[in-house]
Amino acid sequence: MNKSSNLETEPLFLSACWCKPTSRTPVWIMRQAGRYLPEYRKIRSQVDFLTLTKTPELAAEVTLQPVRRFGIDAAILFSDIMTPVEGMGVKMEFNPGPVVTNPLRTASQIDALRIPDLNENAPFVAEAIKIIQKELPVSVPLIGFAGAPFTLFCYLVEGQGSKTFSQAKSFLFAEPQLSRMILEKLTDVMIEYLRGQAQAGAQALMIFDSWAGLLADEDYKAFAYPSVCRIIKSLGHLDIPLIYFPNQGATLLETVKDSGADVVGIDWRTSLSVARHVLGSDVAVQGNLDPMALFSSKEDLGSRIDNVLREGGPGPGHIFNLGHGIDKNTDPDRVAFLVERVRESSQKDLY
Amino acid sequence: MNKSSNLETEPLFLSACWCKPTSRTPVWIMRQAGRYLPEYRKIRSQVDFLTLTKTPELAAEVTLQPVRRFGIDAAILFSDIMTPVEGMGVKMEFNPGPVVTNPLRTASQIDALRIPDLNENAPFVAEAIKIIQKELPVSVPLIGFAGAPFTLFCYLVEGQGSKTFSQAKSFLFAEPQLSRMILEKLTDVMIEYLRGQAQAGAQALMIFDSWAGLLADEDYKAFAYPSVCRIIKSLGHLDIPLIYFPNQGATLLETVKDSGADVVGIDWRTSLSVARHVLGSDVAVQGNLDPMALFSSKEDLGSRIDNVLREGGPGPGHIFNLGHGIDKNTDPDRVAFLVERVRESSQKDLY
Repeated sequence: MNKSSNLETEPLFLSACWCKPTSRTPVWIMRQAGRYLPEYRKIRSQVDFLTLTKTPELAAEVTLQPVRRFGIDAAILFSDIMTPVEGMGVKMEFNPGPVVTNPLRTASQIDALRIPDLNENAPFVAEAIKIIQKELPVSVPLIGFAGAPFTLFCYLVEGQGSKTFSQAKSFLFAEPQLSRMILEKLTDVMIEYLRGQAQAGAQALMIFDSWAGLLADEDYKAFAYPSVCRIIKSLGHLDIPLIYFPNQGATLLETVKDSGADVVGIDWRTSLSVARHVLGSDVAVQGNLDPMALFSSKEDLGSRIDNVLREGGPGPGHIFNLGHGIDKNTDPDRVAFLVERVRESSQKDLY
Repeated sequence: MNKSSNLETEPLFLSACWCKPTSRTPVWIMRQAGRYLPEYRKIRSQVDFLTLTKTPELAAEVTLQPVRRFGIDAAILFSDIMTPVEGMGVKMEFNPGPVVTNPLRTASQIDALRIPDLNENAPFVAEAIKIIQKELPVSVPLIGFAGAPFTLFCYLVEGQGSKTFSQAKSFLFAEPQLSRMILEKLTDVMIEYLRGQAQAGAQALMIFDSWAGLLADEDYKAFAYPSVCRIIKSLGHLDIPLIYFPNQGATLLETVKDSGADVVGIDWRTSLSVARHVLGSDVAVQGNLDPMALFSSKEDLGSRIDNVLREGGPGPGHIFNLGHGIDKNTDPDRVAFLVERVRESSQKDLY
């Protein structure tokens, strides 16, 4: 961990990731570049989703939109967790979620998966990062990201999004060896993909394990966790914060605490005080307002925000965020209210 | 609680519900009457789902199928949690999941909801129970059930099943007073509906809160939990076991322990030892093998079953079940293996 930077000049977000004291709690919002913003919808009305992710100027533009509108404390690259999977040789469409033309099921399909580096895999991602970094204020770090191998495995084997991912899970249990082969290849590719993002200029890296919560702890330990640990270990030398988000991971935190992640994202089900107690004071937490709370009255929303700040503190190492991606029907004015409230309240004595 | 029955003659399932010692661990399976059984599919090929739930002879027949095939320790009425909602005046179709023609959104829609008793609401349910009880061995109790008010609220406001129930949740947060009105009416109806099932012959009652896990504990306490407590309190005088299943409720158990439920259903994410520790020795637990574990090799499946038994004990008060409904692609032979394994292993010293 890099704890040597100067407190005066280091961006708030990075200081909080390193569990260093900050003048207030930094805030950003999962899926902050997205459909709830009219300026995003305007661009999306002209290009489809895949084109948007693969056109560096446009991806950079939508990445910057919430920074301009809200003066938020971190930017996150606009992309999709499935982006680096295409370069492995997997054919997909977005309809509107990712649909895999030939879901992975056989050893020969798995053998055929390629392990490209970022430049071969998704050169447009490195280009987008460079454009973003030219425009981004120095106080606002850029987060790069990837899907966790188990979460990508779920999509690649199921073939599409699902409530239960029953195809993917039955494959996992019926074919543990083949499953491990897929997970290992995905791990190799995500290490290269994340490393490439850091080399292009990403100042923090986040691993989204959206479907970690499908697994009991015992199966998480057997299948999902080892690849997360390997990614974190392989990227430790980069000296930038590594954030891991085990979605719906309430029952996995005892395991996750040893992952080596600098920051753990917490969904809204687990209170931040419980998470901090389990994870210890060396690990920062990121979260965790229920995204649907943005539909409450401002009075309710304000007190919910203060509650999250109270649970996340006292003491350093809390990055305010939602507990899941923002809903597409959210009023952007509520987000402006949220950002302002976090700023104000986190400078008060809430205890 | 009725703890006076004779240990010699009381069915294993009921003894375990009352936390009394049993010669082995009783076992039944959520959604045990369903599409994974060829004899069920044969009947469903002739009638649609709604007709099946509303025709007492057919509902009784499919309820009895898994009892005959597996010699399982409890039967559960074949029905749907949405069944009693139609009698409130809500129009629906099954397509294949429940779709509400006019999702609830306004005060006048809510005012118009009726509160029928079971005989007015779903007389076919009482009839089915009576037919089942004539055929069921005395050692196999029949479980009646209802959806928890919050879970029904989710369907009624969203209008259909959903991964996130974002319409229902945004309504909950935006309109807490209207939401409470809906929840209160649903509570009134479910009390009558469950009472009617007990009067017709159900020997235990289960409340399915399939979507409890959508809520943080604070919102669960404000919206979902009060109706569950009111149902349990209203039915306590019946002196039959009341089972509450807060699906994905890992972060809610500290609250649930005071609900008054005799048995708490646990999904596969929370280990039974943790659940028992939180709930205390007076509350039985029901669960919690991951349904997808039935796709493992028999060797793996056997050791997973033994693990669940180990976590559920030692000491009385464990009913073996899956941690969620069985998947429709499950091999019935694996279920036979499971039932046999639970019987054998639970009579051995696993510790």
